[in-house]
Formats: sequence, C-alpha cells, structure tokens
Amino acid sequence: MSADQDEREARVRLNVLTEPGDPRVARLLGVMGAQALATELAADGELLGLREDVRMREDGLDPAGVLARAAAAGIRYVVPGDAEWPACLAELDHVDAVSGLGGQPLGLWVRGPLRLDDVAAGGVAVVGSRSATTYGTSVAGDLAAAVASEGRTVVSGAAFGIDQAAHRGALGVGGTTVAVLACGVDRAYPSAHRPLLDHLAQHGAVVSELRPGLPPTRVRFLARNRVIAAMSAGTVVVEAAVRSGALNTANWASRLNRVLMGVPGPVTSAPSEGVHELLRTGAASLVTRGEHVVEALAPVGTATVLPRRAPERPADALDLLEMRVLDAVPLVHTAAAVSVAHAAGLSVADTTRALHRLRSVGLVRAEGASWRRAPQPE
Amino acid sequence: MSADQDEREARVRLNVLTEPGDPRVARLLGVMGAQALATELAADGELLGLREDVRMREDGLDPAGVLARAAAAGIRYVVPGDAEWPACLAELDHVDAVSGLGGQPLGLWVRGPLRLDDVAAGGVAVVGSRSATTYGTSVAGDLAAAVASEGRTVVSGAAFGIDQAAHRGALGVGGTTVAVLACGVDRAYPSAHRPLLDHLAQHGAVVSELRPGLPPTRVRFLARNRVIAAMSAGTVVVEAAVRSGALNTANWASRLNRVLMGVPGPVTSAPSEGVHELLRTGAASLVTRGEHVVEALAPVGTATVLPRRAPERPADALDLLEMRVLDAVPLVHTAAAVSVAHAAGLSVADTTRALHRLRSVGLVRAEGASWRRAPQPE
Repeated sequence: MSADQDEREARVRLNVLTEPGDPRVARLLGVMGAQALATELAADGELLGLREDVRMREDGLDPAGVLARAAAAGIRYVVPGDAEWPACLAELDHVDAVSGLGGQPLGLWVRGPLRLDDVAAGGVAVVGSRSATTYGTSVAGDLAAAVASEGRTVVSGAAFGIDQAAHRGALGVGGTTVAVLACGVDRAYPSAHRPLLDHLAQHGAVVSELRPGLPPTRVRFLARNRVIAAMSAGTVVVEAAVRSGALNTANWASRLNRVLMGVPGPVTSAPSEGVHELLRTGAASLVTRGEHVVEALAPVGTATVLPRRAPERPADALDLLEMRVLDAVPLVHTAAAVSVAHAAGLSVADTTRALHRLRSVGLVRAEGASWRRAPQPE
Repeated sequence: MSADQDEREARVRLNVLTEPGDPRVARLLGVMGAQALATELAADGELLGLREDVRMREDGLDPAGVLARAAAAGIRYVVPGDAEWPACLAELDHVDAVSGLGGQPLGLWVRGPLRLDDVAAGGVAVVGSRSATTYGTSVAGDLAAAVASEGRTVVSGAAFGIDQAAHRGALGVGGTTVAVLACGVDRAYPSAHRPLLDHLAQHGAVVSELRPGLPPTRVRFLARNRVIAAMSAGTVVVEAAVRSGALNTANWASRLNRVLMGVPGPVTSAPSEGVHELLRTGAASLVTRGEHVVEALAPVGTATVLPRRAPERPADALDLLEMRVLDAVPLVHTAAAVSVAHAAGLSVADTTRALHRLRSVGLVRAEGASWRRAPQPE
C-alpha cells in the first residue's frame, strides 16, 4: 500500500509552504485534504499568514523533481497512506497543542533501511540534556543498550550528550535506532555528528519533517520533539535541567498517553533536577535500568522485574528466637548451652534446638559441649 | 499528669523480664495491665517462654532502686500515662507485626531535656545506610538542617553514616534532634559516637526502650526501628542498599501510615538501590530537599513548593511568530526587515512588529534600517 503520487506531491508543496508543527495546517488538512489545501494556499497564502514571496517560491516548485532528487540521495518521503506510515502519529491530531505546536506531520523524510511502522510498534525514546554529565551519558548508553537488546528501537534526536549516548548504546549491541532531526535528513546538526548520522542512515533511520537542505531553528526543535514522543511507545528522560528541551518531549509523551519514565541522579546535580521534578509530581515513573523500561512497556502481567536482591546470607533466614540465641553466643570464647540460654533469656531446650539450627547454616560452631560463633565472610 | 509509681515500677519489672518489641507482651498488657502482668510473669514465666533464671533475676529486682539510679544518672523512665508520653506510639498496638516484632513500648528511658511529646508532634526521621557515601551524608546533613530550621525535630539512630549526618545537620543549625538507641541510653554504640550522644543528651534527647546498661543486639535494632518510625510524622530514607536496616524503618513508617519519603541518588550507586526500589514501587515519594519534606508533612494546602525554575531569560517568553522571526535575524551581519520577513516566511508587517518586540526585550538590535541579533549572556 502506498499513497498516490498526487497526494505525495501535494504534501511536498505544503511542506515547502509551511513550518512543521503548525496546528492550523493539520486542521485544514483534515478538512480539505492535501491537494485542495496546497492549491488554496498557493492561491491565497494569507490563509495562514504566508508571505507573497514564499508563495512565489512555491510557484516555480516542481514537487516531482524534489522527490526525485531526494530519492537520488537515498531519501524517501513517507506520507499517510503509505504502508510504512506509523499509524500512531495520527494521535497528534487529537491532543492539544504544546507551546502552540501540534498536529500530525505532513510526511517524514527518511534516510535509512528501517521501516517507520516497525519503529513505532515498540520504540523507546531516550532523551535528555545536551550538557549531560558522564554519569548521564553512561546510564543512557547502558539503558539504550538493554532496551535495544530486547528488540526495541531506540529513538532520539542525535544531539550531543544523552541523545548521542542513547544512539551509541543501541548501536553497540547491534540494535536498531532512529534519529529524528530538526533539520533536513541530508544535513548534520551538530556537524560533529556527521559520522554518527551516516552510520544511523546505513543501519537504522534518520528522519525529519523538514525537507532536505533545511537548517534547524528553535521552533523546528520544539516541533521535532512531538515526533520523537509520538513515534515511541515510551519516553525515558535521563538527565534534564529545569529548562531542558527534553522536558518538552516529556510533556508530549504525557499528552499522548505514552509511558513517561525518568532516571534519577544525584539531587545535587542540576542536570537531574528536571527529571526529579517529573518523578516527584508523578508525571514520570522511576526507572534505573533497561529491564524497568521493558517492564513498564510490556502488556500488563507479561514482564515483572523482581527487586534486585543482595545474595542471601544465612542470617537473613533466622526467626526471632534464633536471632536472640545467635546474639547470645560469644564471639571469642566458647559457652555451654545453659550459659547461652541464660544470656538469651530463653529455656535451655529452646536454646539447644536453635543452636543446632544455627550450626546447620554455618553461623555457630560446636566445640565439645560448648558453642561459639563461626566467622562469617563479609 | 503522670503515671502512678506502682505502674511505672511494674513496667520496669516487665522491662527486665522481656525483650523490646515482643508483641505478646503488648497484647497481654492490653488485657491485664502492667501490674498484673508483671506479677503473673514473675510467678509463671513460661507464659512467654521466659527462662526460670530470668524470673529468678527479677525476684531480687528493686524497680524503685533502678529508677532512682537512673534518675541519679539524669535518666527518666517515661511511660504511658505520663503527660510526656507520645500518644502516637499507641498506634503500634494496632498494626501487624514486622519480622515478628511490634507493639507499643512499655516505656522509654530518656536522657536529655527534650519532651517526647514535642518530638512526636512533627518529628522527621532521617535514616539510611551506615556505609553511606559522601554524597549521602552530605545530602542527609543538608536535608536535616533544612527540616530542623523549620522547627521540626530530626529523629535518627545515632549510627555511622546517614544517622550521624542527620543529627549533625540538625545540631549545626541549632535545631532539635533525638537519637533512638538499640541499647541503654547510658551506653554509646558505636563507641566513637560517645561525644555525639553526650551532646544530644544535653541539647535534645537520647531515647531507648532498653533499660540502662543493656548492649544492642540484632533483635533490639529491629525493635528500635519501629520506635523511630512511630515517633515521627514522616520518615526520609537517604541511602539504603537492598539489605539496609533503614528499609525496615521504612516498612514501619508505611505500616503506621506515616509519610514515607526517599532521596534518590545515582542509579549506579548500590547504597541508593533500596531507596530507588521504594520510589519505583510507590511506597515512598521522592524528595530532593528539606522543603519537599516540609511540604509533604504540612496539612494539605498550607505549603506548596514550586518547582525550582531557572532564571527567566528573554527568549523564554517568545511566542511562535517571534521565535520564527528571531531565528531569521542574522547573527554576524545585519538584514533589512523585508529580508528577515522573507527568511521567516512571514509578512513584512508581522515581521516588523515582532522585530520591535524582540528589540524591547534585548534580543535584537536595530542598526539604521537593518537588524541583527544582540549578543546574549550565557
């Protein structure tokens, strides 16, 4: 199944005429359809406050040529109606705007072999601060690796810090990972991430609402965040200061009823403050490792992470009477059962029974008719 | 108001005959009263499995003498019926045992000027690992200081690590703090804490169910934890590994419907694992500083901590149109409004209005008829 060519080309035209995340576009699209809206906008740009010269630019536009040039660069334009289009993105049309932005994307430009509908099935967004700490990047990398090992796609934004660590963590275990950009998929932002993005385009996917060639802007970052949240079944925030863009992604995840999770950190660390606030208010649930994320996303009852337990030690299984007797057995010298019983304030019969149980688990040792503590490994 | 002398002496006798936290004692006490129970136990110690020789020991006991010697050492025995007895301890008789321990204490031996009923009114237990990290002790100290500054008493167990940091944090701001011990209040455990305990006895209180002279045991530590939880309106766990005794105190706080709180830490830190588990399961709520504790304990609606916000920056207040215009203003050279409008894809009229607003908040600068970005402090 794929959308017809006129539809795809109309969306290319709209993509040129409008900025991503404009909820007015999404609304009109729902009413008029892409082809009518594109024609209308070209005829009367003021419908969305579009400037004359932008409309002029569109006049000379050859959508088929744009698509062909993208295809030549290994970039496809996936739109609603294509089998690959992730159905879950439609939910963006049914929730309120965040910071004035919202709506399902017109389409997504994709570079890479991964099918978008496969990502969206169980993708996990791992997002956080660009100015992350080594703690944050290390935790994000481990968590992404664990999630990717479970066959889930790691979605992030290819920024410095947490994003980069998340992509690398997934790649490091041969997992799949997707970068959603705030610029064209042929561009590298930050430019230092050109090799990472090329690698992602070979093994996963690099995705954007923005047509090839466009640079990122403030608004485009905000619009991009809604796509990261919407494409993922859950979002994990690893480090986010109180002003971090990751909190905008978190807000989208909540609004879209996605599972929102946060990894805590030292309360003295500014990059963890935003996460702690999400956890404190109950917006996010606390996760400390990949298993917790997998559990939170699994259908109810299918995966439960038992609390990590320290290895059992013999003393853990004692009942109160045994504890009292053990406390009464001397450490450095030996004592007769009657003397232990006296110290414990218990009968000799109870004490003797307890001493034998304590010996069987290696906590005390009999020397002739007397008893002493057995040394324990620390 | 104070309990009568016979009652107090009967409780001293029971205190000698039994171990603290024996729920059978609490139950029988409720049925028979202290004086009848003490007499009965002395006559038939097997009622509680008491050993003949312990009963014998009690035979020679002079409760009035015990009280007088304690008084001479500055130690009073506070029992139910005394005005100073904290009413909230009675709740221990109405909840299930934890690890076989439970019940209201027979009485509390107290060294220090602080009145126990004043503690219990709004006390905050700050507990955690003995093998705490410097992160943990630093956070516990700050948190205790903040809580004590609000006039609340900090309750802890005088152990190494978090306990010590909590007491010191409270003392450091001239606040009140109470140590609840698992040994007699005249003993120092650990012995290195003798100066701390003496200081607490001068300025706060050192408290124990155990009569003077008795050493701590495993069971006594467990029994002691229920008193810490019951004497406090809320319990904060700062660091606790999966086997930490602090989790036993946390369990008591939950069982007693006290407010249970946890301070997160690095997920890579074993001493934070137990706390994270409390937070993850929802048993405890996340706090990162003293204000959060005060808020959690305040009557609903009387104290709300606003999320800590980074200082406002001019760019925070922009609307979408202003953001688009700002993104279109060049950084290094200047541009005419019409050229900015073209780059932003907006009308010249809208663009010009936005440029003037951006100038008024210091984000752009006019140079003749042209515009450029204003440098921003980082």
